Amino acid sequence: MNKQELINQIKEKKSFLCIGLDTDSAKIPKHLLSLEDPVFEFNKRIIDETKDLCVAFKLNIAFYESQGINGWKSLMKTIDYIPKDIFTIADAKRGDIGNTSSMYAKTFFESMDFSSITVSPYMGSDSVEPFLKFKNKWVILLALTSNLGSQDFQKISDSNGVNLYENVIRKSAKWAGDDRMMYVVGATQSKLIKEVRKIVPNHFLLVPGIGAQGGNLSEVIENGLNSDYGLLINSSRSIIYSDSSLDFASSARNAAMQIKLEMERFIN
Amino acid sequence: MNKQELINQIKEKKSFLCIGLDTDSAKIPKHLLSLEDPVFEFNKRIIDETKDLCVAFKLNIAFYESQGINGWKSLMKTIDYIPKDIFTIADAKRGDIGNTSSMYAKTFFESMDFSSITVSPYMGSDSVEPFLKFKNKWVILLALTSNLGSQDFQKISDSNGVNLYENVIRKSAKWAGDDRMMYVVGATQSKLIKEVRKIVPNHFLLVPGIGAQGGNLSEVIENGLNSDYGLLINSSRSIIYSDSSLDFASSARNAAMQIKLEMERFIN
Repeated sequence: MNKQELINQIKEKKSFLCIGLDTDSAKIPKHLLSLEDPVFEFNKRIIDETKDLCVAFKLNIAFYESQGINGWKSLMKTIDYIPKDIFTIADAKRGDIGNTSSMYAKTFFESMDFSSITVSPYMGSDSVEPFLKFKNKWVILLALTSNLGSQDFQKISDSNGVNLYENVIRKSAKWAGDDRMMYVVGATQSKLIKEVRKIVPNHFLLVPGIGAQGGNLSEVIENGLNSDYGLLINSSRSIIYSDSSLDFASSARNAAMQIKLEMERFIN
Repeated sequence: MNKQELINQIKEKKSFLCIGLDTDSAKIPKHLLSLEDPVFEFNKRIIDETKDLCVAFKLNIAFYESQGINGWKSLMKTIDYIPKDIFTIADAKRGDIGNTSSMYAKTFFESMDFSSITVSPYMGSDSVEPFLKFKNKWVILLALTSNLGSQDFQKISDSNGVNLYENVIRKSAKWAGDDRMMYVVGATQSKLIKEVRKIVPNHFLLVPGIGAQGGNLSEVIENGLNSDYGLLINSSRSIIYSDSSLDFASSARNAAMQIKLEMERFIN
């Protein structure tokens, strides 16, 4: 998916919501467990009920990988099931030397048809470049994450007072334009989104951390919105696990609708 | 495997060689391709021919993942096939928020019985801790990698002149002792191994980058060896792909033997 298509989706749906399919077989409603592929059945019903409210689905690869071969089957069925006009994110946080990153890129962009993958910047340019070679596919680079541990290294300032996460954004913005690179900036860091916007005014930001992690939605929007909208705001657990009854999917729809309505206020 | 058991293996075999099973179905000898699981058959024969010469096998997860479900089957069969007295490394470079890192840890330490996993430090302490909760399992944290991109961020110095990779080692050495934490330091950075040794004199270092990537073996040993040996030196492509004929496994043995004999000189 290219940038204009993503922007069009946001305009049309009046939403920049991304729903995280962190699907854990220990947490899904019990009545699904007797089905052949409970994880896929859960995802299918969440997708059906929310696909008109969101512009992206983010699949947390750890949750599928932990189920071994069955998990990979659920993952592949899910990515095939998501409508092609919705942006998809392989939340995999990969990154390795060139020949290895190429393998990861093939997995998520060729074997599976994800629109994008999250990548860790630690190993530098040649660990990211193999992911940038695919047309209309995106790298979403970790910059300032939503967790407490983001304090440990991401906020170390260099001899010029520039924080590591800022160095990551500044340098990587030269590897590819805003048509194939986005950045992860946690909602729990909403005040710093302003600083990020000074460096990359035109890039999309993937913002996890509202809901279960406690980030503030309207603060994120006020600090992060640009003329292309420029935000994909993710919520996972607080949408998909809002209810464990037979009605779980319509409860998920209600939870997603609350966020979408908040977003709608910011979209003409 | 605990630290003393690893040291005993090194003493016994007079080797601290780690062999990287970066098994790529496009690169293995053609005569294996007609078998049911060519990747596993290749690994099996490499393991059989080299298991007395090395103390560790490192499985590069990208190569298995890229083959989808068949790849996961090959991976699981391989990890089950490796003798239990050999240290195993899931070279996965994972790292995510706590609940997600826990999932990755379960995958590699419970569903599969790896001794260790490589982890990226970018997201900080709470992304690493879930991997440290498993008894006799190890985190091998990326510090100073072997690729060119290691220059981009790992060598950014803070306001006190301390490089990021040094900050990573200093801080993370407080999260766990040298009985469950190791560091990746690339062989192409062999002069800097001396600096790493000043910070962590007692830790094991996993050193990739000799062979195809060009690092110098004896320089690594001279700068990195400690009283526990303290090194696992990895070679992947230059051992496993040394020959593509019917004799590939004995050629791999010869290539591994060359390195083992060089190491033997440093072991009493």
